[in-house]
Amino acid sequence: MRWARFEHAGSVRHGLVEGDEVAIVDGDPFDGYRPTGERVALASVRLAVPVEPRTFYAAGLNYAEHVREAAAVLGRAPDLPPKADIGYRATNALIAHDEDVVIPRDATDEVQYEGELVVVIGRRARHLTRENALACVLGYTIGNDVSERSWQREDRTLWRAKNTDTFKPMGPWIETDVALETLRTRVRVNGVERIAFPTNDMIFGVVDFLVAMSRYLTLHPRDVVWMGTEGKSPNLVDGDVVEVEIEPIGTLRNRFVRER
Amino acid sequence: MRWARFEHAGSVRHGLVEGDEVAIVDGDPFDGYRPTGERVALASVRLAVPVEPRTFYAAGLNYAEHVREAAAVLGRAPDLPPKADIGYRATNALIAHDEDVVIPRDATDEVQYEGELVVVIGRRARHLTRENALACVLGYTIGNDVSERSWQREDRTLWRAKNTDTFKPMGPWIETDVALETLRTRVRVNGVERIAFPTNDMIFGVVDFLVAMSRYLTLHPRDVVWMGTEGKSPNLVDGDVVEVEIEPIGTLRNRFVRER
Repeated sequence: MRWARFEHAGSVRHGLVEGDEVAIVDGDPFDGYRPTGERVALASVRLAVPVEPRTFYAAGLNYAEHVREAAAVLGRAPDLPPKADIGYRATNALIAHDEDVVIPRDATDEVQYEGELVVVIGRRARHLTRENALACVLGYTIGNDVSERSWQREDRTLWRAKNTDTFKPMGPWIETDVALETLRTRVRVNGVERIAFPTNDMIFGVVDFLVAMSRYLTLHPRDVVWMGTEGKSPNLVDGDVVEVEIEPIGTLRNRFVRER
Repeated sequence: MRWARFEHAGSVRHGLVEGDEVAIVDGDPFDGYRPTGERVALASVRLAVPVEPRTFYAAGLNYAEHVREAAAVLGRAPDLPPKADIGYRATNALIAHDEDVVIPRDATDEVQYEGELVVVIGRRARHLTRENALACVLGYTIGNDVSERSWQREDRTLWRAKNTDTFKPMGPWIETDVALETLRTRVRVNGVERIAFPTNDMIFGVVDFLVAMSRYLTLHPRDVVWMGTEGKSPNLVDGDVVEVEIEPIGTLRNRFVRER
């Protein structure tokens, strides 16, 4: 199933994407839903962020090549994480598929994409095991962990490097039928593929993180976990369109515009 | 005004604390409210966390003596923050006044309090100035930024050192009438005062943070900003009761128990 959240007739609704239509439901996939029988054309709705996260977790450095390249950019020695220590991002920065990333006037040229798999938690969970960890997952969506690298070097936290308003595109929807080991992430800038990598080639996988996290904390419906990215991004400029594709989830597309 | 959030007759309500009573309202102070005329004894209700944060911000190191002492504990050189770089905590860890902090079985003895002023945002705001910054604040409450210092040294992020379930007591309520410069924070363990300091003796004050943050991000109703703490805490043991008092806000009290 493919769960979309969207604006329709003046309110925010949930629905199942079926071909080029959306079957609208009352309620949502977290607290329960009922079909309404109403269908609308997918092309006619404005997609919203597919979930408003309760807690916005992010794995940060979780692919070997990215750790080496990020360290080089920051002028530091590469430091592969020895265990699954989760980090955080902030909800103020979220935007939906097809909304614009706004690069602040005082940002440098070093604004870059990071195409990521996003785990969406559907059920409350604590003390997960490797065997049952994925049972708390509703599905998967896509994130672009937009980063301003000069701020990432200068600031004591990642607050403005990663969480400036509009720096966290997420969408287009949540796909529930996903085999992690078959996924491939592709990132295109203005239609040209810049990187492709097996999504599941993580240092610590989805199960590793959910088991480690839930040993100390309760996972809740609507929590999201961004799983990190591979490789290196070019600097993005005003007008660039970035697409992060993870089949069979879909494609998250956003234009980057510089604030006037 | 003093806004409490509490359980009453099977649901979570908001009300104004007036002496030893609570005047119950319909709605809440963020989205609007209407008096109901119903009053209950304050002693008869079970206080809840006074706000469920949208984004949970925390200043981290923001008092000079604490920076020096924290650095000594972590075996690092003290590093006074040169600017107001905000950090984050996580909502899973929140508990209310009078609820228990549960120290996990595998935690070391180095579990400590940090008594903090908490700013509660009441209005959406961006690009605040020093002159208008406080107009977006609904009021102030109290936080205890409970920390496991060995995890703080070992982990790549603060996730389990600071955000283990129950490690973030917040309450007892939100006080709207506060003169920041007159506040004094006192922390007691089992009734004995362990530290007292002028709450506003911060490296970067409330206005500094709100102005710096809102240059890049939108503040939203229900966001909270924990302002950091002064000094050093003893290690807390099973059964210790910690009270963080900031007059005229009130006193946040929680017992620490070790997981069996």
